[in-house]
Amino acid sequence: MPRQVTAFSNDTVKRLRSLRDKKARREEGLFLAEGLRIIAEARDSGRLPEILAFSAQGAAHPLAAEIIAAAEAAGADAIEVPPELLGKMSGKDNPQMLLGAFRQRETGLSAIDRAASPLWIVAQALRDPGNIGTILRTGDAVGAGGLILLDESADPFSVEAVRASMGAIFTQAVATARWEEFLPWLRAGPGQLVGTSLKTDTDYLDAEYSQPCFLLIGNESQGLPADYEAACDLLVKIPMAGRADSLNAAVAAAVMAFHVRASWNEARR
Amino acid sequence: MPRQVTAFSNDTVKRLRSLRDKKARREEGLFLAEGLRIIAEARDSGRLPEILAFSAQGAAHPLAAEIIAAAEAAGADAIEVPPELLGKMSGKDNPQMLLGAFRQRETGLSAIDRAASPLWIVAQALRDPGNIGTILRTGDAVGAGGLILLDESADPFSVEAVRASMGAIFTQAVATARWEEFLPWLRAGPGQLVGTSLKTDTDYLDAEYSQPCFLLIGNESQGLPADYEAACDLLVKIPMAGRADSLNAAVAAAVMAFHVRASWNEARR
Repeated sequence: MPRQVTAFSNDTVKRLRSLRDKKARREEGLFLAEGLRIIAEARDSGRLPEILAFSAQGAAHPLAAEIIAAAEAAGADAIEVPPELLGKMSGKDNPQMLLGAFRQRETGLSAIDRAASPLWIVAQALRDPGNIGTILRTGDAVGAGGLILLDESADPFSVEAVRASMGAIFTQAVATARWEEFLPWLRAGPGQLVGTSLKTDTDYLDAEYSQPCFLLIGNESQGLPADYEAACDLLVKIPMAGRADSLNAAVAAAVMAFHVRASWNEARR
Repeated sequence: MPRQVTAFSNDTVKRLRSLRDKKARREEGLFLAEGLRIIAEARDSGRLPEILAFSAQGAAHPLAAEIIAAAEAAGADAIEVPPELLGKMSGKDNPQMLLGAFRQRETGLSAIDRAASPLWIVAQALRDPGNIGTILRTGDAVGAGGLILLDESADPFSVEAVRASMGAIFTQAVATARWEEFLPWLRAGPGQLVGTSLKTDTDYLDAEYSQPCFLLIGNESQGLPADYEAACDLLVKIPMAGRADSLNAAVAAAVMAFHVRASWNEARR
């Protein structure tokens, strides 16, 4: 049976709260997911939380009750807390009824099995965790294998990224690597590296994409460094009709990924 | 010459600060834009701020100096403030050097000239101002005419929406309307209303899009109401390869808008 906890100073409460902080996430190897929808997504992907907090109202939901029971059977630390305490833990005005801490998976390049999918997204030095989560969600939808984050990047296990991923943090592979590690790894196997750039005349609609395709997306404000572009097998541009010269990074990733998938569908017809 | 202001209690400072609040924006008919990049975008689109605050460092930038002079010549209230005061006004740790208040344009459906563009984005009850700004930015890039916000929506003139728009708030038409007003307006002229839905077998890649095309995007959590779907001329689905059943609203708008544009390019070849 879950323990009932009412004190903000309780150790499990403090531990969950600490996971809003990147340093604690790294030390513990855990991350937070909030809400029944995402936690059910995790369970459906074979993942259960190691720590779980919920309100009485949350525990009354049949699906939540099932997940709480399964997590406890697997040894999770489960606590029932008053709604206002859950609110303080999640830092939101409308707290979710359920809060879980999950084990982070391996995020080395060894986590990437390039044979597992024809399409991978690679993003360089993304600053906005919301963009990372949104790209994971897009990757899940388009059938990508996962996301490789190059260089100094926001944390894919931050609360904002996990929330924006809508559960895709559990279904997409995630790796973090320096460019200097990534490029030799990429060249040690098959793979077309495709960069989006303003410095090419090749329209993204006219290019041919081969599998596995690695779509390289630049940082939010700078785009791709010149030497990264030079290392690409293919540079394409998304023509801009208006005054702006770029798209939001998550939008650029989505437009490219959906077009690449569509081009392969087209070829099969 | 701009006045030098150091007091947080100064009336112009207070007025600018008040524009972070939706009620004040509506009453004043003004909105905030932060940073030289967006304000220069406004100027290039023929728009100057009516109120302007900047740091000495900001005023030293040649482009900023030009904009400050032009705004003052047009009667703007321009004040130079210490960097820490600018920080307090923008509510950011790394404040921009320049902060402007611009007049909101008309946002009735009369603001929409459907002959001005083959493509329009229509979004229903968006909750996230970042999504609204990102859709405006996408609209600018893809050559859409503007964005029509249906029903209760986040404020397109909020600081977050303006920031995410990267200046497209100045180049895209923006209208807000109830569905009950929008539908008769749409039917009073040419226009194909295209909804994305899970309740159709028509792949978005197989459909034909006619001009002017109005892409209808549903709310972040609920998607489109059934009667909105029923009123569409065309329903299409974006096939989901993974576990999730939807895309981020701004991503869905971008995937659809870029595909529709591409399908017209294809037809011309």
